[in-house]
Amino acid sequence: MSSSTSLTGKKIAILAATGVEQVELIRPRDAVREAGADTVLVSVEDGMHDGRIQAMNGDIEPADTFSVDRMVGDVSVDDFDALILPGGAVNPDKLRQDERAVAFVRAFVTSGKPVGAICHAPWTLIEADVVRGRTVTSWPSLRTDLRNAGATVVDEEVVTDNGLVTSRKPDDLPAFCAKIVEEFTEGPHRA
Amino acid sequence: MSSSTSLTGKKIAILAATGVEQVELIRPRDAVREAGADTVLVSVEDGMHDGRIQAMNGDIEPADTFSVDRMVGDVSVDDFDALILPGGAVNPDKLRQDERAVAFVRAFVTSGKPVGAICHAPWTLIEADVVRGRTVTSWPSLRTDLRNAGATVVDEEVVTDNGLVTSRKPDDLPAFCAKIVEEFTEGPHRA
Repeated sequence: MSSSTSLTGKKIAILAATGVEQVELIRPRDAVREAGADTVLVSVEDGMHDGRIQAMNGDIEPADTFSVDRMVGDVSVDDFDALILPGGAVNPDKLRQDERAVAFVRAFVTSGKPVGAICHAPWTLIEADVVRGRTVTSWPSLRTDLRNAGATVVDEEVVTDNGLVTSRKPDDLPAFCAKIVEEFTEGPHRA
Repeated sequence: MSSSTSLTGKKIAILAATGVEQVELIRPRDAVREAGADTVLVSVEDGMHDGRIQAMNGDIEPADTFSVDRMVGDVSVDDFDALILPGGAVNPDKLRQDERAVAFVRAFVTSGKPVGAICHAPWTLIEADVVRGRTVTSWPSLRTDLRNAGATVVDEEVVTDNGLVTSRKPDDLPAFCAKIVEEFTEGPHRA
């Protein structure tokens, strides 16, 4: 099997809400699709209109809208092989207020299935209380919150801790996308 | 002195960045002005264009722009009698990344001068490490971050802890505005 088809047959959830940084939604999605995976955009009611979420270019400039495939309350970690959490400040701010989204993320990390989270996305990991004792990176604004939640925070373009892949910002996307394809190909890690 | 002029001669800083929730900037500002105070809009470079910051209606809808009076690096807690921190998710996300803004907020709280913070604004208080042992409220998304930073979090429209006034959301503005005028009139609390 070539590396370009290493994820054939795998189903990957992308959990995102209105306010998601568009480039952090599209590029990881396309990277895992190019490796052969199917992707499913999962979301929450807050900020969704006509079945779509509003993506942003940066903090305050609206970009495109994206059609949501499944609501988070209707899916289970058992339905997927891996999880992608894009960034954008407002996106995890909405996700972490939804108990079902937080439970879905917690179930994913505790299952040992691989998870990739970039930029502001680790706020949702904090809410799920799954960063305690883990080494991660993030956008600078939430590093104090990550440390207060028990994480060790480093400033590197991509960090992998037992299947949990984190990056800091859009500039890190080449490294992030390569690493999530690698980790998602390996499959579940010891929980 | 009537209550409507209780803040005459007082100078109040409003620290806000692009992404500020417009109604949480305007209404506290107008409340303290109506009580006789002068207000100064203090900001940071990130997100400022042509000397103005972009306010939002809610999370993702741009509202008006506001002219910044002073940069936070050019002011001191000694210049002011009280501090207002409006909300909006992106606003404290920018402020907490600016060391001078964080130092300004820390100096204010430790000085004992009264501070009002609403909605997402307490993220900047977390970054300044001034919520440890304090009782506060906030928008729901950051309550876990506040608890992890050592605060006791309650769900009330306005909470006052030794000169630190906090509220949850725009709906709380009548209670928040009345309470900050009261606390700002009292002046410095024991630090």
